[in-house]
Amino acid sequence: MLNNVMTKLLKIKYPIIQAPMAGGVTASKLVAEVSNSGALGMIGAGYMTPVQIREQIVEIRQLTSNPFGINLFVPNEFKVTDNEIKSANQFLNPIRQQLNLHQKENFEIPDFNNVYEKFIEQIKVVIEEKVPICSFTFGIPSKEVITELKQSNIILVGTATTVREAVENEKAGMDIVVVQGSEAGGHRGSFIDGDQESLVGLMSLIPQVVDNVSITAVAAGGIMDGRGLMASICLGAKGVQMGTAFLSCVESGANKVHKEAILNAKEDQTVLTRSFSGKWARGIKNKFILEMQKHEALLPDFPVQNTLTQDIRKTSSTQKNQDFMSLWSGQSPRLAKSQTVESLIKNIIVEAKKLSYMEAR
Amino acid sequence: MLNNVMTKLLKIKYPIIQAPMAGGVTASKLVAEVSNSGALGMIGAGYMTPVQIREQIVEIRQLTSNPFGINLFVPNEFKVTDNEIKSANQFLNPIRQQLNLHQKENFEIPDFNNVYEKFIEQIKVVIEEKVPICSFTFGIPSKEVITELKQSNIILVGTATTVREAVENEKAGMDIVVVQGSEAGGHRGSFIDGDQESLVGLMSLIPQVVDNVSITAVAAGGIMDGRGLMASICLGAKGVQMGTAFLSCVESGANKVHKEAILNAKEDQTVLTRSFSGKWARGIKNKFILEMQKHEALLPDFPVQNTLTQDIRKTSSTQKNQDFMSLWSGQSPRLAKSQTVESLIKNIIVEAKKLSYMEAR
Repeated sequence: MLNNVMTKLLKIKYPIIQAPMAGGVTASKLVAEVSNSGALGMIGAGYMTPVQIREQIVEIRQLTSNPFGINLFVPNEFKVTDNEIKSANQFLNPIRQQLNLHQKENFEIPDFNNVYEKFIEQIKVVIEEKVPICSFTFGIPSKEVITELKQSNIILVGTATTVREAVENEKAGMDIVVVQGSEAGGHRGSFIDGDQESLVGLMSLIPQVVDNVSITAVAAGGIMDGRGLMASICLGAKGVQMGTAFLSCVESGANKVHKEAILNAKEDQTVLTRSFSGKWARGIKNKFILEMQKHEALLPDFPVQNTLTQDIRKTSSTQKNQDFMSLWSGQSPRLAKSQTVESLIKNIIVEAKKLSYMEAR
Repeated sequence: MLNNVMTKLLKIKYPIIQAPMAGGVTASKLVAEVSNSGALGMIGAGYMTPVQIREQIVEIRQLTSNPFGINLFVPNEFKVTDNEIKSANQFLNPIRQQLNLHQKENFEIPDFNNVYEKFIEQIKVVIEEKVPICSFTFGIPSKEVITELKQSNIILVGTATTVREAVENEKAGMDIVVVQGSEAGGHRGSFIDGDQESLVGLMSLIPQVVDNVSITAVAAGGIMDGRGLMASICLGAKGVQMGTAFLSCVESGANKVHKEAILNAKEDQTVLTRSFSGKWARGIKNKFILEMQKHEALLPDFPVQNTLTQDIRKTSSTQKNQDFMSLWSGQSPRLAKSQTVESLIKNIIVEAKKLSYMEAR
């Protein structure tokens, strides 16, 4: 069951994708080491400029000759008023004070057209650099974009948090759909269904998705080891996408403070918040999340809130202060280990094979 | 893997427990048919009087000679003021009007001492009637109760929604712990950890629990078929407890309207609400849940709110009006079928065995 349609499609040895975590986690050595170990390394390029993307692709190619992939954020329309920004800033300024940061009044608020143009530029780089696999979060790109990528023989991977979203991904021509359960760390990939509606646990979500689509489904959310891989396969997925497990690896580019927060966390310490970016995401509860909780409904949408909190997140991270950083984590932090990518992947496969053998008895 | 410590302990053929759904779902023919089919039938006796319990035990024994179990609610302390009741009633009276029910002002509000006395009476019946398995929800009974049950050789089953709750169950002497994932329908079994904290998906929860306890873990939440059973076993559970799958069986005592609501629901149509009983529970979104949503934080605790909504739930149910009933369901309603218990269990085992074989290839 470990060699299947997914490994064939992606030309990898093991049915494991390293989740494309954005914001510096997917350092070239992480991506390359994952691909070198027989799984699929992924660049989390959502926030990256086209130039940065090209540079990282070149860098990774110097470290591995195996396939790797890239993930982009599909831009969503958003509206924001000056008043919303002002009011969000009123909540953020007391936090800036705690970090000895200047109060901020002026921001370069992103404009949808610019965001979309950047997305098209990112797509161009992916095509020009012949990245073999491209995945998407927060939506499905336009027909034109999909056609162009397909003409370049790029394997397309969508993200879904409900059956309906998975069906839309199939209709749009995606080759694979990553099924994101409520357990998942980081941003919710939901793009049709709203908040609570799209919080479906993998035990429920995978079988209901695979009963309703014929494209390959990959399970994502809380999977950390061979047990999670084999469980996902039993439920009907062909493989897994793992974030937190790779984030805590020695090769990942995540801040040390972030890695340590995960290694010390328990399964009941992550929460959903939209206070960092304007989009719902799961992370370890900290001072920032708690202080912003009561204002959550009033905060501007992604990517506006993300822009507003940028200085806070950056400074907190530089100061190694976990109080105001986004400590993204899935619901299985107790299973996280500080280990090399090679050892993580090896252990998964050994455990999965052992389980296969035991199941059959 | 299907014959294991759990099946030995419970003296059953297949590692499947029918969840002890309270409120009339666990009709004698359901419980007996489950036990006759090789799984464990359970009486959901939380709301039942000692006399009713004794009657049902006698009835079930006429229908099966196989083991079956019973579930009781561990009473939790609660406080309530007249004002809270008045204000909850202000929200409920407009709903009563829609059902042509009299406005209600006077309620027999339960008193903790009475609730506790009833619990002790329930325990007495379980011991006197020699029910071989007793499970608990909403907490862990006192040392004295546990000792008494153990002296009568009754197998004890606790419920946990977090690792900490599972550890407490083990410490208290439970033989088995049912690990309730966020996918589960009906009441959350949480008794230490609060709302969002205890909403952990099974993919995350099972491995983290089994790494931290040595008693047998049974997975509950969204499991409907052989895929869910095998996935749970891969994750480290020894078996499963299934509610929604049995609720929609022809033998279950659930209202036809409730069964049909499940058979027509999608995975993104269940929500958590405390508006029916005062405790968080997962059910299919309906008019009652939506109308009460904005008042949710103000409603009195369990079992007070449960008493307040009793006439509404009953009348709605009698009128076959799904708008104001509690339509408990887990997150996998798309997998529910109208079938006999025998066929449900047979299909699970056939599918599980097929998966075992495929895994090993």
